[in-house]
Amino acid sequence: MHGDPIAPVILGVTSILLFAIFGRFAARRFSQPTVLGELLMGIMLGNVAWMMGVDLIIVLREGPRVFDIVSQTLAGAPVDQVAIALFGDQTGQEITRIITGPQGGQVMQVAQTVDVFSRYGVIFLLFMVGLEADLEEMWAVGADSVRVAILGVLVPFALGFAALAFLQPDMSLNSVMFIAATLGATSIGITSNVLRETGYNNSTEGHIILGAAVCDDILGLIILAVVSGIVVSGSVDLGEVAFVILMSSMFLVGVVKLGPWIVRFAANLMGRLDIIEAKMFTSYLFVMVLAWVANLAGLATIIGAFAAGLVLSDSYFSQHESPQRGFVGIRELIMPLEVILRPIFFILMGIQVKIEAFLSWPVIVVAAGLLVAAVIGKLVCGLGARPSTNRLVIGIGMLPRGEVGLVFAAIGRTLGVIDDALFSAIVLMVMLTTLAAPPILKTLIGRDQRRQVEI
Amino acid sequence: MHGDPIAPVILGVTSILLFAIFGRFAARRFSQPTVLGELLMGIMLGNVAWMMGVDLIIVLREGPRVFDIVSQTLAGAPVDQVAIALFGDQTGQEITRIITGPQGGQVMQVAQTVDVFSRYGVIFLLFMVGLEADLEEMWAVGADSVRVAILGVLVPFALGFAALAFLQPDMSLNSVMFIAATLGATSIGITSNVLRETGYNNSTEGHIILGAAVCDDILGLIILAVVSGIVVSGSVDLGEVAFVILMSSMFLVGVVKLGPWIVRFAANLMGRLDIIEAKMFTSYLFVMVLAWVANLAGLATIIGAFAAGLVLSDSYFSQHESPQRGFVGIRELIMPLEVILRPIFFILMGIQVKIEAFLSWPVIVVAAGLLVAAVIGKLVCGLGARPSTNRLVIGIGMLPRGEVGLVFAAIGRTLGVIDDALFSAIVLMVMLTTLAAPPILKTLIGRDQRRQVEI
Repeated sequence: MHGDPIAPVILGVTSILLFAIFGRFAARRFSQPTVLGELLMGIMLGNVAWMMGVDLIIVLREGPRVFDIVSQTLAGAPVDQVAIALFGDQTGQEITRIITGPQGGQVMQVAQTVDVFSRYGVIFLLFMVGLEADLEEMWAVGADSVRVAILGVLVPFALGFAALAFLQPDMSLNSVMFIAATLGATSIGITSNVLRETGYNNSTEGHIILGAAVCDDILGLIILAVVSGIVVSGSVDLGEVAFVILMSSMFLVGVVKLGPWIVRFAANLMGRLDIIEAKMFTSYLFVMVLAWVANLAGLATIIGAFAAGLVLSDSYFSQHESPQRGFVGIRELIMPLEVILRPIFFILMGIQVKIEAFLSWPVIVVAAGLLVAAVIGKLVCGLGARPSTNRLVIGIGMLPRGEVGLVFAAIGRTLGVIDDALFSAIVLMVMLTTLAAPPILKTLIGRDQRRQVEI
Repeated sequence: MHGDPIAPVILGVTSILLFAIFGRFAARRFSQPTVLGELLMGIMLGNVAWMMGVDLIIVLREGPRVFDIVSQTLAGAPVDQVAIALFGDQTGQEITRIITGPQGGQVMQVAQTVDVFSRYGVIFLLFMVGLEADLEEMWAVGADSVRVAILGVLVPFALGFAALAFLQPDMSLNSVMFIAATLGATSIGITSNVLRETGYNNSTEGHIILGAAVCDDILGLIILAVVSGIVVSGSVDLGEVAFVILMSSMFLVGVVKLGPWIVRFAANLMGRLDIIEAKMFTSYLFVMVLAWVANLAGLATIIGAFAAGLVLSDSYFSQHESPQRGFVGIRELIMPLEVILRPIFFILMGIQVKIEAFLSWPVIVVAAGLLVAAVIGKLVCGLGARPSTNRLVIGIGMLPRGEVGLVFAAIGRTLGVIDDALFSAIVLMVMLTTLAAPPILKTLIGRDQRRQVEI
């Protein structure tokens, strides 16, 4: 029997995806957003398999920093010293035992593949969010959306700042800012799902929520860029803040202005290929190039992916469509990539939640403070909408942080400003807002619709 | 500016895909099979970038064995000793320089990602080939296909064996067998593409070619398993040959018999999810599980993927389809994964072709011998079809080795029986048969169709 080197990778990645599907299944069973099921399954998997001593999970649980061990070892440093320096005595020794063991190289390869897949997953997710958002629709919804979005970012930020200053006065300013910024996030995916399910996406409230969620994404991403820039440069430099705002605005505006021209050019060039190949390659390359350029400009790769989604549309390819091939949209072509890879991102986020970190008063207190700031902040933002609307529905519609909040937290973790305890508190807040919003929203919309029927 | 760790991976993978797309483009421009363009572009990229000293390409060019350096280094061996032991002085020192350099860990991560993507690519490719093949259609085409397929495997094997025994009498029996087996491969993808383009896929000849290509794939894969088994066990053990034939037959029969039951069960279970998710997850999990089980049974992962494709069909999901969602087939759902990943496999195959190895008389002589054996062998196999058919068309239709031949060669290389020079000779043979078949086939079919119109 000869072993194909891909077999252990297939086993690891597929097992993790299988758990994610179980989680998704359970979420569907209890009519909850699928993200929630994947996260919960990841948390369960991470903690049970960790206690059972499953090597792959132990490595994945420590997050992407583990891969630094490979780089530093290849450059000549001893494995155990690097591991202990990065993860402390106990975890460092356990990781050293795994890596230097007979399956060490294989475990690291599987873990790196899971990590790469999860990162591609979140890139495709943000691309799809961008693709579903529509710039024109956003403009049409107008001032209400913008007011709701701005309030929905500023109020939770201010409240979160205040809550943390009160609860954790010794926390570094960088950490406080990052966490406060996380509170401003809105998950357009979850919100638009609920609106679509209830047929509410064509109401005034629905339009305002969708528009505000789109603005909020952009605002949130700019704030993420600003806060990340400050964290990396180490101080609040107003010139740098302005520069980062300029960079991110320039990137987004540049993409929106130059993007269509580039896509049109690429679509014409690719027109010689089969229409499906042309759409697929153009979309894939556009997403990846923008993700990379965004990173080059100091922004997160997901900003590029989101921007690519905003710009791309099937209309660029209309002259190359042939009736006998049938119409296949970009959404349908990228969706399979997203469907397979996105669950890996969420379950990996779950795996990295250390339940032992939840079981401490400081985390519970911080999580409670963040939750209060998060809920009040988003309820207040509903006031940005015109008085004739159901502002409570709008506030609740903006509530779920979902994947965007987690992405923020993951970046904060990569930057080293969010430690395990804070990450756990944020995940608790994200989980609770994401869990609470859909059922409340459904109830409120149902009541609203019944009232309109009575009138 | 903070760097997202995925950015260099995106840059590497996307650049390589971009070159593959250029190759595909050029192939389309000159009406050649796309595989050919990707291979040629890979060969160009591999050799030019190697001469220019591009680290990533130097690492990729040495093939998957490079990753053993990471495993062995993590286990405690010094990088340079491992590298020189694996690749000899000159290449070993160059690889050591790259790996221990400041970007070493990053280069290895990008190379590993490209390698993993390419392996997933070939798995999805073989899945699609299986999906497009139809067991029932194969039975209906009947005895002609089976005769053509058996002749098409045996005659090239015998001729190849004879040619190598004559040209390279000191070659090991294992290598001779492996290369001779490579000659029996038929690329169903390329053949069916040409047949579809000319509208010839519904003629008797078309049916026989397609049926024979399917049989040939199965026969070829059994032979691959047999030969691999012999290579690994080190001797021609008839009991072992029988065992491997039994294992591979049992696996294929088991999949065909039990597979539908498993898919039906999974489809019902997944029925609670959205129909697209249900199809996507069921297909993905089925392919991956069978790929893994095939490997466990001592077969190649691609055998499992091919078998999964043979079994799966949209009919299992018909009771869960809802008219308002519109029909989306498994083929359309898996295709995007294949469209993005498959070119990475072919370009990587091209990158691993060392042009300096072509420039030697032994390689050219062996390649010429293989080419003659390959062409005569497949022309003879047309005689297996009933006399009323155009046997020349059938023979030429079976000519292109395409991806299947390359997959064989790649496995032989992993097993260590095919060295750089032989690999180069095989790739030359694959390229020439793949390049020659489509234009000849088009001409012959055109002539045949004109004659039928005259009658």
